Amino acid sequence: MTLLESALKEIKPVDPALLAKAQERLDMLTKPKDSLGRLEEFARRFVAITGNTRPTVEKKVIFTFAGDHGVAEEGVSAFPKEVTPQMVLNFLRGGAGINVLSRHAGIEVAVVDIGVDFDFNGAKGLIHKKVLRGTRNIRKGPAMTRDEAVKCLEAGINLAAEYAADGAIFGTGDMGIANTTPSSAICAAFSGASVEDVTGRGTGIDDARLKNKINVIKDALSVNKPNSNDPIDVLAKVGGAEIGGIAGLIIGAASRRIPVVVDGFISTAGALVAYEMNPVIRDYLFAAHNSVEKGHKVMLERMNLRPFVDLDLRLGEGTGAAIGISLVEAGVKVYNEMATFGDAGVSEKDK
Amino acid sequence: MTLLESALKEIKPVDPALLAKAQERLDMLTKPKDSLGRLEEFARRFVAITGNTRPTVEKKVIFTFAGDHGVAEEGVSAFPKEVTPQMVLNFLRGGAGINVLSRHAGIEVAVVDIGVDFDFNGAKGLIHKKVLRGTRNIRKGPAMTRDEAVKCLEAGINLAAEYAADGAIFGTGDMGIANTTPSSAICAAFSGASVEDVTGRGTGIDDARLKNKINVIKDALSVNKPNSNDPIDVLAKVGGAEIGGIAGLIIGAASRRIPVVVDGFISTAGALVAYEMNPVIRDYLFAAHNSVEKGHKVMLERMNLRPFVDLDLRLGEGTGAAIGISLVEAGVKVYNEMATFGDAGVSEKDK
Repeated sequence: MTLLESALKEIKPVDPALLAKAQERLDMLTKPKDSLGRLEEFARRFVAITGNTRPTVEKKVIFTFAGDHGVAEEGVSAFPKEVTPQMVLNFLRGGAGINVLSRHAGIEVAVVDIGVDFDFNGAKGLIHKKVLRGTRNIRKGPAMTRDEAVKCLEAGINLAAEYAADGAIFGTGDMGIANTTPSSAICAAFSGASVEDVTGRGTGIDDARLKNKINVIKDALSVNKPNSNDPIDVLAKVGGAEIGGIAGLIIGAASRRIPVVVDGFISTAGALVAYEMNPVIRDYLFAAHNSVEKGHKVMLERMNLRPFVDLDLRLGEGTGAAIGISLVEAGVKVYNEMATFGDAGVSEKDK
Repeated sequence: MTLLESALKEIKPVDPALLAKAQERLDMLTKPKDSLGRLEEFARRFVAITGNTRPTVEKKVIFTFAGDHGVAEEGVSAFPKEVTPQMVLNFLRGGAGINVLSRHAGIEVAVVDIGVDFDFNGAKGLIHKKVLRGTRNIRKGPAMTRDEAVKCLEAGINLAAEYAADGAIFGTGDMGIANTTPSSAICAAFSGASVEDVTGRGTGIDDARLKNKINVIKDALSVNKPNSNDPIDVLAKVGGAEIGGIAGLIIGAASRRIPVVVDGFISTAGALVAYEMNPVIRDYLFAAHNSVEKGHKVMLERMNLRPFVDLDLRLGEGTGAAIGISLVEAGVKVYNEMATFGDAGVSEKDK
């Protein structure tokens, strides 16, 4: 059995009895029942995912996977391709949005080169998991071979193993100029939605470029004919290296009972690839924020995930996940640190 | 001129030139334009409110005002009245939801007795600003005299002065069994909306109690006839001590150019009282979360405020404000700490 097969096989649904046990404790805390809303849901789910009835968050890591995309040559992005390695170096120096928001929430950022078309020469702090130097242009043929796609997934699974710890929570992030294009293609391939309904402006393209982007995605789907019943085929043909890394990280985390907070559009495309391989994975995921990209909602609904931060973010990198991790942690702290009615001598609700 | 009059007079609209200047810097940072959405808005507004073009958040305080309500005797709440002082003691011991969420975000909690029907005997850590021992039953007559209402407002204004500092940000919170009842009454009085449309289940009452609560509020409005053109009259007749304290804190903060993150339904009723006295106050407010209480939306729309946390919270105490303060601070950090395109050697958008 391959690493991928065995990780997928190890993923088990969370135990509903643990959700109920966690709710029992939440209902003893000094607040009206359910009044902390989704923070209580986060606590319940954290208990059920980890299997620890008094869990604490001990290790917070966001994995920002970087990769290039051959389809960038089709003019689908507002930024030139060289921005991918430039931003990776910015991450390593701590100057990007993900660095600031992660510092704010006490989160480590793991920057992963999984497919950038640039030689980083062993840059300090960078995690070297390069599978290829940029994907090939999906308008003309497959982005990757099936073997390369599996290597991306396994790089993610290995990272989950390397960073696994008691009390860990992971977040996903991405960097890759043009990567909303393969993400929309993945969304359309699995959901059957029209390309127009799942394609947005990415980093900010105008109407003419948006029209071109839609045509490029339509061509990519008709040239490659990805098989939606075979998620690795979809990832290889119209996906990207960072999307595969994110999918693999999620598979690895779920196989080790580690919760994962999923960032926006690109990360959700990665989560969807993982979910299509084993829908039980949904039990381990928290959807952080509502992206401005319209395909995002289609994918979240397919996985029945409801985001909780409404800040009009569309940066990626893991920025929404950083905020999301802090809120999941807040839920776990509520669960652990609030006084019970008995302890605090507070009267309960009238019968 | 009284303290209230002079504070109201000192409140000036924020300077749009400062908003534009802040946006200039935001547009130089290594991210697509506007891609950090509302975090950028928070940074812009923080600059404009404080008048400091490189502001940092140096002091975070949530003021949780506690008061009792004579109308509790009408059976409008799911909890008995003694819970108000019990919860105040729970706040002082650090065991309540607001304590946990404030610790998580590095926020100080200032617990203020402004109108609890209990003798705390100088309890340690409690801020003693008691104006009255519980309001009177608004179904039968005014909650407070006009003089008492002004004293509540001035207690809040004085607290803002005592806690004022460079880089300060305040949050509001409340504790008071039955206080959704006066909040709905305030909402109906100013907005003209029907009582049914602005009255919810508070801490969790059943259908029969909800029906009773609606009748109580209708009676309170017809018995007291609050004058919606005279916000102090509304506060005195159908409000509450903690609602007045919150309104006063907001007035004091705005007069000193300190941003205020407003919690849910009760805090927003306080914000509305302040807003009706001087609508410029809106410039200084951040609406944290979307409360489950349906009158909340009516008041936010009246002030043109858009909340940003969607966690189904309905606890009060300032819990939504704690999360909100952390997100406003995140916006300010993005503004200060992110690298510019020039500094980071990152290529800008294609022209």
